[in-house]
Amino acid sequence: MTDFTLSATVAAPYDDTVERVRGLLADAGFGVLTEIDMAATLQAKLGVETEPRIILGACRPQLAHQALLADPRVATMLPCNVVVAASGDGATVEVFDPAVMTEFSPALADVAREARERLSGMMNALTGEMEGSDAART
Amino acid sequence: MTDFTLSATVAAPYDDTVERVRGLLADAGFGVLTEIDMAATLQAKLGVETEPRIILGACRPQLAHQALLADPRVATMLPCNVVVAASGDGATVEVFDPAVMTEFSPALADVAREARERLSGMMNALTGEMEGSDAART
Repeated sequence: MTDFTLSATVAAPYDDTVERVRGLLADAGFGVLTEIDMAATLQAKLGVETEPRIILGACRPQLAHQALLADPRVATMLPCNVVVAASGDGATVEVFDPAVMTEFSPALADVAREARERLSGMMNALTGEMEGSDAART
Repeated sequence: MTDFTLSATVAAPYDDTVERVRGLLADAGFGVLTEIDMAATLQAKLGVETEPRIILGACRPQLAHQALLADPRVATMLPCNVVVAASGDGATVEVFDPAVMTEFSPALADVAREARERLSGMMNALTGEMEGSDAART
């Protein structure tokens, strides 16, 4: 298995974590363009019960534009998914690692680096490490 | 550069192609959970003009559920993006290749294979090859 995500586990419950992640994404300069309530979708379509899980499609338009100019194929990896799932009494947060984009297309190195710094900062702020980091201040 | 997409170029104009792709995705068993009008987003947020481009988030709930059971990290790659962009008088269609998921996580091999077959069939139907294929009939 290859690491293709940045992940964190937090003690706070799912609902609180979803709201916290929304705020931290905004702090890091990302808007949320799409939202998929995966548990609700699977319940509605298949009638199966799964743990609460939401996929937030995070986008920083400046980075998206820069990425599309560098390699238009990147659109198939946009927006950057930030997934919050319930896990016991707490929650897990997982982000598609932008570094993967560079493996696919070296032309995306600069934009992937910036996206990764911002999202890593968001994850650090979430878990309480490195408070006041650049990413958290934006 | 690594191939991480399935792509096709069609002579039909952008708007017609978007509608055609929606229909072919439905034929292939995929619903569209999210839509991002990228050109409108970049215009609204940055004031820049870019070619018409839409990102359709395609999901087959059965496959998504199977994938989440095999490796929950897959949620960071869901839904499967299908991108239609204007290109001259025609359009390009590009899909994130599900085979990539297997590179990241071998546990996803089965579901990635089925997703790839269905999406390849959709692309073949789009370009007129292999009409009447399994994927087009669903």
